[in-house]
Parts: sequence; structure tokens; C-alpha cells
Amino acid sequence: MTKEEKRQQEKLVADWQALMRTFIRPENDAAKATLVKYMEQILFGLQGFLKKHVGITEEISLMKLSSGFTNTLISETPEKKLADVISGIVEDVAPYAVNVASPYFVGHMTSAIPFFMVHLKTIIAALNQNVVKLETSKVFSVVEKQVLAKIHRLIYKKDDDFYYKHVQNTYTTLGCFTEGGTAANLTALWVARNTAFAPKNGFAGIENEGIQAAYQAYNVDRSVVLVSRRGHYSLRKAGGILGIGNQNIVPVDVDRDNRINLKKLLETINYFQKAGRTKILAVIGIAGATETGTIDPLRKIGEICAEKKLHFHVDAAFGGAVLVSEKFNHLLDGIETADSVTIDGHKQFYMPMTCGMVYFNDPTSLDAVEYHANYVNRLGSVDLGIKSLSGSREANSLILDSALKIMGSKGYALLIEHGIDTARQMADEIKTRPVFQLVTEPELNILTYRICPENIRLDLDRGNPDKKRRINHKLNDININVQRIQREAGNSFVSRTVLMPRNRPENEIVVLRCVIMNPMTDIKILNEILNEQEEIFKSKFQGYVP
Amino acid sequence: MTKEEKRQQEKLVADWQALMRTFIRPENDAAKATLVKYMEQILFGLQGFLKKHVGITEEISLMKLSSGFTNTLISETPEKKLADVISGIVEDVAPYAVNVASPYFVGHMTSAIPFFMVHLKTIIAALNQNVVKLETSKVFSVVEKQVLAKIHRLIYKKDDDFYYKHVQNTYTTLGCFTEGGTAANLTALWVARNTAFAPKNGFAGIENEGIQAAYQAYNVDRSVVLVSRRGHYSLRKAGGILGIGNQNIVPVDVDRDNRINLKKLLETINYFQKAGRTKILAVIGIAGATETGTIDPLRKIGEICAEKKLHFHVDAAFGGAVLVSEKFNHLLDGIETADSVTIDGHKQFYMPMTCGMVYFNDPTSLDAVEYHANYVNRLGSVDLGIKSLSGSREANSLILDSALKIMGSKGYALLIEHGIDTARQMADEIKTRPVFQLVTEPELNILTYRICPENIRLDLDRGNPDKKRRINHKLNDININVQRIQREAGNSFVSRTVLMPRNRPENEIVVLRCVIMNPMTDIKILNEILNEQEEIFKSKFQGYVP
Repeated sequence: MTKEEKRQQEKLVADWQALMRTFIRPENDAAKATLVKYMEQILFGLQGFLKKHVGITEEISLMKLSSGFTNTLISETPEKKLADVISGIVEDVAPYAVNVASPYFVGHMTSAIPFFMVHLKTIIAALNQNVVKLETSKVFSVVEKQVLAKIHRLIYKKDDDFYYKHVQNTYTTLGCFTEGGTAANLTALWVARNTAFAPKNGFAGIENEGIQAAYQAYNVDRSVVLVSRRGHYSLRKAGGILGIGNQNIVPVDVDRDNRINLKKLLETINYFQKAGRTKILAVIGIAGATETGTIDPLRKIGEICAEKKLHFHVDAAFGGAVLVSEKFNHLLDGIETADSVTIDGHKQFYMPMTCGMVYFNDPTSLDAVEYHANYVNRLGSVDLGIKSLSGSREANSLILDSALKIMGSKGYALLIEHGIDTARQMADEIKTRPVFQLVTEPELNILTYRICPENIRLDLDRGNPDKKRRINHKLNDININVQRIQREAGNSFVSRTVLMPRNRPENEIVVLRCVIMNPMTDIKILNEILNEQEEIFKSKFQGYVP
Repeated sequence: MTKEEKRQQEKLVADWQALMRTFIRPENDAAKATLVKYMEQILFGLQGFLKKHVGITEEISLMKLSSGFTNTLISETPEKKLADVISGIVEDVAPYAVNVASPYFVGHMTSAIPFFMVHLKTIIAALNQNVVKLETSKVFSVVEKQVLAKIHRLIYKKDDDFYYKHVQNTYTTLGCFTEGGTAANLTALWVARNTAFAPKNGFAGIENEGIQAAYQAYNVDRSVVLVSRRGHYSLRKAGGILGIGNQNIVPVDVDRDNRINLKKLLETINYFQKAGRTKILAVIGIAGATETGTIDPLRKIGEICAEKKLHFHVDAAFGGAVLVSEKFNHLLDGIETADSVTIDGHKQFYMPMTCGMVYFNDPTSLDAVEYHANYVNRLGSVDLGIKSLSGSREANSLILDSALKIMGSKGYALLIEHGIDTARQMADEIKTRPVFQLVTEPELNILTYRICPENIRLDLDRGNPDKKRRINHKLNDININVQRIQREAGNSFVSRTVLMPRNRPENEIVVLRCVIMNPMTDIKILNEILNEQEEIFKSKFQGYVP
């Protein structure tokens, strides 16, 4: 520490006056100018970082990085002024963050967001409303109910009368905002569980008495949820949390296109219903599988559920926003037959981290998870916290509402359509390159492929399982390494995952995965990314191909 | 719509170029100036609102308000430009929000936050990291581990070696950030449940197989959680979600000071342990009860739990931050004996909505809720999403870390101490006013009182239960109305709740409740609030006193 720094630090004392200044709204122009200066520093100081490379660092430098974050003592006196904290973040922290806004970052569902989202988030923070109850949010509770109705209408397309009746109805609820998709799926299954084991003669309901008593009252000893093998891991987690056991989130095989195999689904339903003593809590259709972007045949699943009288949940955390596109919303055909639907705001509605939502066809469904307290959330009040997994919660709905006004559904549609169109262009490009094999076609804006030179594909096709396994094993090694080297080079980022086509173990393959959400990502950039992968492969791994 | 407005709207088209502009970082000074102008509009446009009254509106105007938010159609084309959206929020929405930052708003745990918190939240939004995995957060995962260690150290005060070993250890976890206190309590009980029903010979564990199988494997038919009658409603909710049934969150009576009655606690534990076939998952101590601010005798509960080998959870969502105050941290004596602790960042760490945290004494406790997926959260990685209720999650830890640097623990201590000291001054003031009766002394910065004129207190003390009930019933009506009229007048806000001293039904009373968190709230303001209540009472309800 230099003398000057030391002198500066000594001036940083936690006194009452300094403290009060941080709470008082600026009264004069000088104070205002200071606050604006900080905002400039944030908006443009970070810009330098945002223009740089993608910046996912290699393992070794992560270890080095962590070594700078080991002090675990909280300083008694202030360490830094706000301006220094901000410049510290801009100079010392941001450069080691991941530039998810780069058009070369095509590995995950976290991507660039429109700049105005930052402004909207700032408004939410400045007002600091808590929508758990009307007394700390007032108009924001009303806004939330309106936004819920807007998205509900996008999904369920009910008539004017329905929405007029429910939009501001304090006794019914069209859905609720959650922390994210995990909490949304959990809420949907929570409702499904409680509805399946509702109160009846002498039994006060599963929420009240628990699973043990519920199984006795309903004469079962198992609950299951059916979803394809492409189901998100939050569903297993929900099964664990809800006490039914995550092994009872039963995976149903998929067809060649990674969609749920309807024949297998029907067989599974019949198996459980015939054997008895097992309650099927829900059947889940996926609208935008995390790994492949696949959409299950929603209308057909809906028909099966209607016939078998089962709760139909659609996990559209990723794909839900496609409903705004007239060009592609047919892909979600049948979603309106779902009893519940998960949609994430921070995915294809391009909101900042994090915002999940869950919608219900029946405006009374959420009654199954109603809680009250003496000091808030009194019966019959508008308090949104009455039927919600969350307690205190920020007013995210205003961000979505404002974004819908700024973009219009057509603006969102342009983003969605760009992603899907570009993914299809990339798929076409991959097919022309002998080094790569397209593994899953992009139904939405997600595709998977791998390095698998043309000349060995015949071997793979004709080989016996043992030979296949051997070849795939080597290819997996190659793909893991190419992905890692590209990531560590820091120019671009493609993720990887594991798939098992036709559910056969010998087909277990590591694939490279692209999610194309950033409107700045175009085929030119994607070609650069493919070129880099091809170069890495050719210069380092060509000799390893079996 | 005027001609000019119509012309303006026609210009708002969702075209590709307009869209791209919202994603591109500003390259020239004009573009930069525009973005800063918007931020100014947010920071100072909202100021007018923030200086105004508290603004919790009466029921009738809420209905009128909702009637303006009934349009449920999403516009195809953009409705407004960002600037208009912001001015719309400033002019048409913010005035109907609740001014939780007013020093006259002393009704809830949602209060003013330091101005820099807004800047910090803006940084988080601008970088839009997702801490579910290293690949979308890098340095922020490292920062989060460091902050977790800092707060863990504040609670558990372990030695340097311990923190050196765990601060950046990718195999252990000192705690995790959650959406809020509800999710933190849920996480703690989830861990307690899974630890109580861990895998054993042939049984794969409750998370995997579910409650029914767990009860069979452990030869029980009930699980309970013990907490005083002052427990937060999120605990019942957690019991419902986790499948043990919310009626099995067993309320233990409190003593005269609203602390858990230790004798009753011991009796309850012995009852369940003796009868057998019931598993006690956890005993909960409250550090800052929501309604009264009371702190349970944590050290003694800890001793009981150690002796009886029970998981000890402390719900310090509200009171946890008091640990930074050397003057008052003795109130939390014994918290370090807890197996798990909930603390909210958006309460007495003055963070924006919302930030919860849960800490564990044992860095391997969270292993009980571990989940992996192929494309993220692979075994042994730094990915924070592996042991967490949440999936995608914003990087809130940087806000807390920065705030600790700007304020120092002493700065936070000043805030905490001001709240407690001021609450005690208010209690003294209430005692001097014959119209009011202090119901609960402020152990922390929360107190409850009611309108109960001195001259009828003797009647209440000497009356039989029937008479007491009659008198209290009338007083309750009066207090409900005085609180409502004050709230609707919009100058200040005190909340109300229901207490039942000595657990006797005839003692069920409506009380007024103050939470003093805003450093600008002083005894002068509190006197004004009491004066207003007294005036309302005297002018409208004095004749109704029995």
C-alpha cells in the first residue's frame, strides 16, 4: 500500500454522516452528477470487457484466480469508496467474468440481452418493491396479474370474457412468477401432487398430512411422473424435494428425433394404471429440450392425458417464447391442452437473470398450494405471496411488461426466427463438412454435432456393438479435447453434452452443442467457430481417429 | 390518441435494424449520452416519487387502479420507445407503488436501501452472469465461495485453517445463496430430511426412493420439525413441499417473552423419542421472529440438540446481520452451535430484493442434495448449481461483497444499532402514553403495541376469560380500524398482526407492529406516527372502548 492509498483508507470511516449520505436521495446538482458518473462508469467501464473475447479460462488459471479470493475476514472499517468498488469490479472482476453477450458465445442458454433490460432492472432495484404482499408493492401486484394474463393468453388463447373475469380477480390466479425454471417446474409438480392427493373424507390432504398419510388414504404406495429421457434435471430434483423420490421421475424412451416415444408412453401409463397402487401425478411434455432443443408432440400427449385423466405439464422453459412467432409457433401446437406450463423470462424473453414463470389452465389450480400468515397474506387479499413457492420476491413482471411494449411480439419474433433460421443454416453447413457429423437437427435454435470424419462413419454403421463402443470412445475423447482447447483459447465457446441415440449404450456419444440466441451471431461467425474446431482437430487429433 | 402520437406510433416498427441497436454497445458519444440520459431519468425521475408520501392506498382506489390494468393482449408492433416506457413508469406506475424507502414506512422488513445498492444491481444485470455453472460465471463463482466463507466465519468463527481449507474448495460448500429466506429454510430442512433418512443397506436414500420407502427402511411413520409458535410460515410451507406434511411442523409454546419454552421443547422431544416411530428431523431456533423480533435461547436449544442428537437449524433470516454489531451480537449467543443457519441479504444487509442465504456448520452437509447433469454441473467441477435448490441464478454475492467493502462491518453495525436503540426509545415513549399498551418489548428493532387505554387494563387483568374475550374483541376492532385509517391516509405505515399471549384464546389480540430499519426513522418521526394514531382513536373510537 502506498502512502497515498493508506491516507485515503484512513479517511474511510464508518460514521453516521457518511452512512446517511448513502440513504439520502441527492438534493443538489453536484450529488446528482456523482451518481450519474457512477452509472456511466458501470455502463461504459464494463463495455471494454464486453467487447473482448469470450473469456472462459482454462483450469489452471481458474486455480490461480481463486487464489486471489481467499480472504475470509470482513473488514471492520470501510475498505473502499463506491467509485473504487466500481472501478475494482470493472478492472479486476469483470475481465474474469464470462462474456455471455459475445456473438461467439453460443454454448448455453445464457446470452446477450437488449441494453434496455439493464435500465429496467435498475428501475426495479431503485423502487425495491416486494410483491409478496400488496402493502409493499401495490401497483406492482396489479401489473404482475396483468402480465400473467398476457402470457397466459399467448399460451391458452381463451376468450375475452375469460380474461376479463380473471385478469384482476383477487380470488383466482393464472400463474405465478418464480425464481427460474427449476422453481416453476417444482411449483407445477407441487400443484399436481396436491391435486392428486386432495383432501377427502377424513383426510386433510397431502400438503397437510404428508405423503405417508396420503398414500394410505388413497391406497397407493408409489407416485410417478413420466417424462422423456430428454427431461431437464430440475424435474428429478423436484421429485426428490417433493418427497416422491427422484427415481419416480420415470424416463420414457425417445424416438430417433429425440421426441418422446408415444407408444412407450402409452405402455408405461397402462403398466402403472393396470398394476394399481401407483398414482401417476403428471405426464410432462418438453418444448425445447435443454440438450437438443427438441419439442415433444404436445397435442398427442395432451390427448393421451385427457383420455387417461392425467395432469399434463409442459416444460417450455426454453421454447415457450416461440409462441410469439407466427412463423414457428406451430411447433408448439397443442400447448394449450396443458394443465400447466413453465416458461423462463431469462431465456428467450431475453430478460436479465433470473425470471421463471408457471401458468395454469385452471385459474384455481394454485389454490392447492395456498398459505396464509397473520401479518401478511390474509385470506381474500390481493397478496401474491399467498399462492407461491417464494416469499419475498422482486417485481420482475414490470421488466417483461415493458419489454413487450418496447419490442412488440414482432420484435421478439424477429429474434426467435433469427435463432432458428441461423441454426438451420449452420446445420446445412455442417453437413457439407466431411469432418463433422450432425447429430440432432435444429428444430429450434439448438443443434448438436460432433467431429466424426466421413470415412469412419461406415465402420460405425456396420460395426458390432463392441466395435461401435470402441470407435465412439475414441471420438468422445477427441470431441472433449477439441471443445476444451477451443474454450481455453477464449475466442469462442460451444458447450458439450452426452447423448445416447436409440437409447443404446454403445451409442453413447459426446456431442458439441450450439444455442443460437444472440442476434449478432450469424453464419459467418459460426463458420469461424467450425473452422477453429476443424483446425484444432486436424493439427492435433487427426492421427487418433480409429 | 392525438395525430402526433399516432404518427409517432407508426414509426415504431419492429425491424431488424432497430432490434440490433438494442443489443449493440454504444460506439459513439451520442449513443452513450442517450443511455446515460435514460439512467438519469430513472435515478432522478423516481426521486419525485420517493420523496412523496408512503402511498399505501385504500381498497377502493386499488380497485380503481386495477381497472387500468386489464388489457391482456400483447401488441404486435412496439407500443413505446424506451424513453417513453421509462417516463411512463416514472409518471404512471411509480406513483402507485409503495414508498418503502420513506422513514414513515415502519410496517415491514422491506425498507430503504443505500443508494449504491442500485448501482451494484445494475452491474449484475449488465454482466448477466449465471452462477449455476462456471462456464457462465467464472470469477463470480469464485467470489460467491469467498462471500459464503466470510458470512460463515461471522456465524461459526472457525479458525484460519478451516477457512483456508474450504474457502475455494471445489468439493465442499459452506452454504449457498437462495432466492430468499423461504428457499433458505426449505434448503435447510431438505438437507435435514435427507440426512435423517440417508442411504443404508439396500436403501438408496429418501431423495432417491421417496418418503414412503424411507419410512419403511427406518421403521417410522412420521417425521416432525419442532419450532416455537413464532415460527415463520415458510417453515410450514417447507413441511408441505418436502412431503412430511405441514401439520408435522409442530408448534411449541412460547414463554411470556415469546421465546420458545424450553421445558415444553424438552417434553415434546421426549414424547416423540419415547413413543418411537417418529423421526425428529430438526429443531428450529428463531433469531428475530417475524412478528415480534424475539430471539430464542439459541445456546440452550443447541445444548438440547447436541444431547438428543438432533439437527439444529436457526432461522436468522431477519436477525442474522446483528452478528456484525459488537454491541448486540451477544443476543445471538450460541448461533455457532447450529447445524444450519438462514440469513437474508435483502433484510438487514440492506440488499435489493431478493437475496437469501443458508449456511452449514459441516461443509459436506449440502452433499445430501447433490444433482448433476450431462451438459453442466459435472462431478468435481466448481459449478455452484450442483448443490442448490436453484437452477439458473444471478450473481447476488458480488452485491453483498461490495457492500461489505463500502460499509465495513462497523457501517452495518451503525445501522443495526440505530434500529434497536430507536425501537427501545419508541417502547419507552409508548409506556408514557396512557392510550397505548406495549405488547412486546423490542429485543431487536421490532416492537408490537396496541391501543388499550389504561383505565380498562385492570378490567382485562381481573376479568374472567369470557369478559377478557369480549374486551379484546372490541379493542381488536379498534386497532384494525385505526391501522387501516392511518394506512389509507398515506402519510405513514405501521403493520398489524395477531398475537395470543400465554397461548390462551381469550388473549387473542390484534397488535400494531413497527420494524425500524430506515436510518432516517427517528423518535421524532415515530412520535408523529403515534400522535396520528392517538388522534384517529380519540376522534373516532374513544366511545367504543368497553
